[in-house]
Amino acid sequence: MRRVTGHGHDHGDPSAMRPVAEHAAAVAALIGPTATETVTLADARERILAEDLVAPHPLPSFANSAMDGYAVRSADLADTPVALPVAADIPAGRTDGPPLAPGTVHRIMTGAALPDGADAVVQVEWTDAGTEQVRIERAVGAGQNVRGAGEDVTAGTVVLPAGTILGPAQIGLAAAIGAGTLPVRRRPRVLVLSTGSELVAPGEPLRHGQIHESNGPMLAAAVDDAGARAELLRFVPDDVEQFTRTLDEALAARADDPVDLVLTSGGVSAGAYEVVKDAFSRTRSGAEPDRREGRGVTFSKVAMQPGMPQGAGYHTGPLGEVAVVTLPGNPVSSLVSFEVFVRPALRRAMGHPQPGRARVRARLAEGLDSPAGRAQFRRGRIDAVAGTVAPVGAAGSHLLAALARADCLFLVDAQVTRVEAGESVEVWLLDG
Amino acid sequence: MRRVTGHGHDHGDPSAMRPVAEHAAAVAALIGPTATETVTLADARERILAEDLVAPHPLPSFANSAMDGYAVRSADLADTPVALPVAADIPAGRTDGPPLAPGTVHRIMTGAALPDGADAVVQVEWTDAGTEQVRIERAVGAGQNVRGAGEDVTAGTVVLPAGTILGPAQIGLAAAIGAGTLPVRRRPRVLVLSTGSELVAPGEPLRHGQIHESNGPMLAAAVDDAGARAELLRFVPDDVEQFTRTLDEALAARADDPVDLVLTSGGVSAGAYEVVKDAFSRTRSGAEPDRREGRGVTFSKVAMQPGMPQGAGYHTGPLGEVAVVTLPGNPVSSLVSFEVFVRPALRRAMGHPQPGRARVRARLAEGLDSPAGRAQFRRGRIDAVAGTVAPVGAAGSHLLAALARADCLFLVDAQVTRVEAGESVEVWLLDG
Repeated sequence: MRRVTGHGHDHGDPSAMRPVAEHAAAVAALIGPTATETVTLADARERILAEDLVAPHPLPSFANSAMDGYAVRSADLADTPVALPVAADIPAGRTDGPPLAPGTVHRIMTGAALPDGADAVVQVEWTDAGTEQVRIERAVGAGQNVRGAGEDVTAGTVVLPAGTILGPAQIGLAAAIGAGTLPVRRRPRVLVLSTGSELVAPGEPLRHGQIHESNGPMLAAAVDDAGARAELLRFVPDDVEQFTRTLDEALAARADDPVDLVLTSGGVSAGAYEVVKDAFSRTRSGAEPDRREGRGVTFSKVAMQPGMPQGAGYHTGPLGEVAVVTLPGNPVSSLVSFEVFVRPALRRAMGHPQPGRARVRARLAEGLDSPAGRAQFRRGRIDAVAGTVAPVGAAGSHLLAALARADCLFLVDAQVTRVEAGESVEVWLLDG
Repeated sequence: MRRVTGHGHDHGDPSAMRPVAEHAAAVAALIGPTATETVTLADARERILAEDLVAPHPLPSFANSAMDGYAVRSADLADTPVALPVAADIPAGRTDGPPLAPGTVHRIMTGAALPDGADAVVQVEWTDAGTEQVRIERAVGAGQNVRGAGEDVTAGTVVLPAGTILGPAQIGLAAAIGAGTLPVRRRPRVLVLSTGSELVAPGEPLRHGQIHESNGPMLAAAVDDAGARAELLRFVPDDVEQFTRTLDEALAARADDPVDLVLTSGGVSAGAYEVVKDAFSRTRSGAEPDRREGRGVTFSKVAMQPGMPQGAGYHTGPLGEVAVVTLPGNPVSSLVSFEVFVRPALRRAMGHPQPGRARVRARLAEGLDSPAGRAQFRRGRIDAVAGTVAPVGAAGSHLLAALARADCLFLVDAQVTRVEAGESVEVWLLDG
């Protein structure tokens, strides 16, 4: 591994750039913890529990049979085989079972409440399955084939702590302790808006110089994947008025359930027509844009590749201030920036126990160079068995096909200019 | 590890039991590959691509600038610094750009089409950013800062093969090649129906002997997690008429989008009141149940723990035959059976590239005993760094709290009766 101690050369000056961690903290600070809402069990899947869930009763709530068979007093089976009268029949769900008299048995089904007086169950396979009188071949000890009250959960136990991600087993457990609804963290509402006069909707024909809009559908899917709620607005050309009108109309239309985050892509670079930068930099008086004195969105060059031009802050819309994150327009830059800054922030806001991607270390399958002064996020494929990661495609921020084949990102630190094959890098698992 | 070579003792006779793999194959055979349907990009997330997606045009579809700067003929920069007239301005999206005359430059934005005649781009940082005339400080070679047409994808390339799971990057790539909709595999429609006279809806009070219904919400979430579409019916008591009426009414009401699978829980054991077994065993003439000659559902004891009583086959409902899988009623048995039999079948039907859970091997953190003749599926927590798996809770099929803490299942083979700490077992990752 080769490192620089001073500053390397790049077309931006790395020494003036914002560190990745600093911008990540700025984005995370924009999106506060979401409120609690109550959902039915049918809507609870993949949500995050907002409060500890406490069992109001034990589980099982009564001693019951683990087998289909006969509830007995074990002392009555001192000498087997033995024939005993079947005094009652206890299907599951019977709520009024009589007590078990000495010298008798009750026929009992799995899950049915053990009658008072019984201390064990003989499975039907050890009997002649009689209904008036039963012949029992083998003795059972006290407690055998009985599930004691509270054996699974005692009353008052926190069965699911706040922060639990609700999957099938957790929803089953919540149902079992009688919870018909669950308190979960609200999913942030995210407006996604792409900009660019070159954009054409997928499905429509291209003219020379035009491209199909891909960032919007991609980022909307990424927002939903993170557990938040994406709403994709129709992309706008490089026109500040149209951008602002589109955004403010969308914000105003959502007064009942306000937007938590506006996520834009494009229009934040160093070019002459940077619509997002200009729109969020306009002063309240409507004067010309002042990019250095924006009214709440800070634009920075972040020391990373891809994804150098970033912005984060607040837009004063028709309903007041709303958090804004501006992502770069190149598709790979856009999605990598989302992974690094937005996804962890959204998940943290929902109380996710692991906001970031699962990270592992792996040995690089081939050597590569990296620009000095900027953390490089390369697309890769991991071989978990071999413990290696191979780059997929080159570093270019327009190479979407390689991104679509990648199952991980791997990092080359800002001060490293060369990593040799076999050296270890940090890997973020994109399906983890 | 201790193995038996003959048959061990259990309350069922293992020698008469159906092997796990045989029942898994029977369930898989019930649910055929689903048809293809077309969805918008907004609805494509987590779906599985049904056909290869081919790029109709290259990506990029035209040579374009990788930088904000000036499109040049590199030969014009033989002696730098040099001042050249800016003959045109090319914002992104301009479709009618004139060719570049020798000895001139065009101001160009990132992503804009390179004019005919230009072979390189000088980034604005290497210039004085002039608009009438520009002073260029450094030369660039031919091709520099240019993204060639087809550099990402050439026309006719399969960018996403059939079977691809559509995430943000794949949706972005599909959009970029102009696909407004995608062909995906239909999600199987699954009716979930629990049975048991002891059941009470979560949120309602319990009387002695009653329990809250947990299998329905749990299995519905598991079906949705597998990528299929669950519809949870209101549970029914142990009453064959009510069960059949509930099921057939639900099937009849879905004639427009028929049900692919009926998934029941409970009512399949050896007890006296086995509603599911009785309902699916009834002959066409309406005679008394004949469990051995069912009209299409085969009930088996499967050599596993938990989850011995299983059934699979077809029910002749009001719209014709519909696939049926009957799961046992104990919650842990029910979810483990779903994992072993139903989830892989549903995912295979949708063309999922990896129908089963991700599997790894890990060393057992503590020794444990296992019944002979039945494959044991224990709940565990894996420590991926240490390479170990620890059991969570005991083997009991009613222990839902332990299931909710588990992140994996691990297997003890049917012929193994004892595994010592440190010995290796197969682990199924429940979040993989």
